[in-house]
Amino acid sequence: MFANVAERAERQPVLAVSTVIFSLRDDERTGRKSLWLPLVRRTREPFRGQWALPGGPLGPRDSLVDTAANNLRDTTGLVPRYLEQLYAFGDMDRSPTRRVVSIVYWALVREDDDHNTATAANSELLDDPNVAWFRADDPEVLANLAFDHRDIIEYALWRLRNKVEYGSIAHRLLGERFTLAQVREVYEAVLDKALDPANFRRQLRTAANIEETDEFLSGGKHRPPRLYRYTGSTTHPLESENIS
Amino acid sequence: MFANVAERAERQPVLAVSTVIFSLRDDERTGRKSLWLPLVRRTREPFRGQWALPGGPLGPRDSLVDTAANNLRDTTGLVPRYLEQLYAFGDMDRSPTRRVVSIVYWALVREDDDHNTATAANSELLDDPNVAWFRADDPEVLANLAFDHRDIIEYALWRLRNKVEYGSIAHRLLGERFTLAQVREVYEAVLDKALDPANFRRQLRTAANIEETDEFLSGGKHRPPRLYRYTGSTTHPLESENIS
Repeated sequence: MFANVAERAERQPVLAVSTVIFSLRDDERTGRKSLWLPLVRRTREPFRGQWALPGGPLGPRDSLVDTAANNLRDTTGLVPRYLEQLYAFGDMDRSPTRRVVSIVYWALVREDDDHNTATAANSELLDDPNVAWFRADDPEVLANLAFDHRDIIEYALWRLRNKVEYGSIAHRLLGERFTLAQVREVYEAVLDKALDPANFRRQLRTAANIEETDEFLSGGKHRPPRLYRYTGSTTHPLESENIS
Repeated sequence: MFANVAERAERQPVLAVSTVIFSLRDDERTGRKSLWLPLVRRTREPFRGQWALPGGPLGPRDSLVDTAANNLRDTTGLVPRYLEQLYAFGDMDRSPTRRVVSIVYWALVREDDDHNTATAANSELLDDPNVAWFRADDPEVLANLAFDHRDIIEYALWRLRNKVEYGSIAHRLLGERFTLAQVREVYEAVLDKALDPANFRRQLRTAANIEETDEFLSGGKHRPPRLYRYTGSTTHPLESENIS
């Protein structure tokens, strides 16, 4: 199974496309929301039986982003509205059998999205024992992933914590309208710690690109909370690709 | 020369690595500094005779970033201290002969760097008529580039204008210490417009991650200007790869 180094080096690298999909879900362990992601159990060598990011070889007639979307739909039933390119991973030793360069896409999806699309697109996938959602920072899961997929997920989490505007993250994980309490849940999930609600509201008002709407959350509450919305940002078309 | 669509689609894609290198240079047209980049004239089909980004196929024993660095050194004599991954371009029709997926790296280099390294590493390259520096936004140059290299350069310029901290840009284009006037020249080059010095100083103090040093620019001036430095940022190792 293991090609020797010289042989391996001479062969053309395989080009693969993988995806990291984050969604917000309840976490019984902490009582807060946390970030979850879908993984697929490998049914072939290398790393047979281990969990891996959804992915596969570049489709000969598909763009990079369409390859990512098709594979994601086929393996997990998920159809996110957009995918963003995360990074290309190409170290020599990523796979024991052959050099693989993986171009990784990522997306944030709403909890209702992932349920709906999974149900609608491919209901039998819901019972597939080789597809499951995991907490994105579960140490046991991360330690046993195939290939360098642990590094990939940890880099995606780092990007989420350090680089992206929180207004945009909230918009993508929550939808068009959200309460400040929901935005706090997003922050708590991404940072993995509880935040003081009053301090958080004060800081958020001056920082994130979020603005009040005239709407309030409907429901049975005595005093329904106000809804906010994301005010948008400058995103290049290449950074948030629509799936064709 | 042109494979038909079906044939082309069946063949394995070629993996290439290209680089976009920006440097600040005097621009006689405007009297300000502007962004320049090195291009290499193609000596083979496709696009023979047209200018292109320095690049080549993935080295069988090299990482992605080392492939970028080796090719850059061999074609232009440039040895930047770091390279950052910009984006992977993989559309079907990028090359008329065969599908090519290009992973593009980029860097900002100091003017003295590019001269020194070119001289030291490979002095004959300085006389090579197939290597030259161009203004990064020269419409005539952009209109006649090989492949989709115009799109790549325009995306890199967009990233520079929209995404990166200016403190970091100044640090990379200017070095460890710089005056506020030099930082203004960087802004003017990136935005391609003259800025009011007094307004600029006021805004810069509150915005960019730049701090005063106790040093002043040496030279013959009556009142030498103060030197500033970049205060750093959170950069993931993957986002600024050192070349091995």
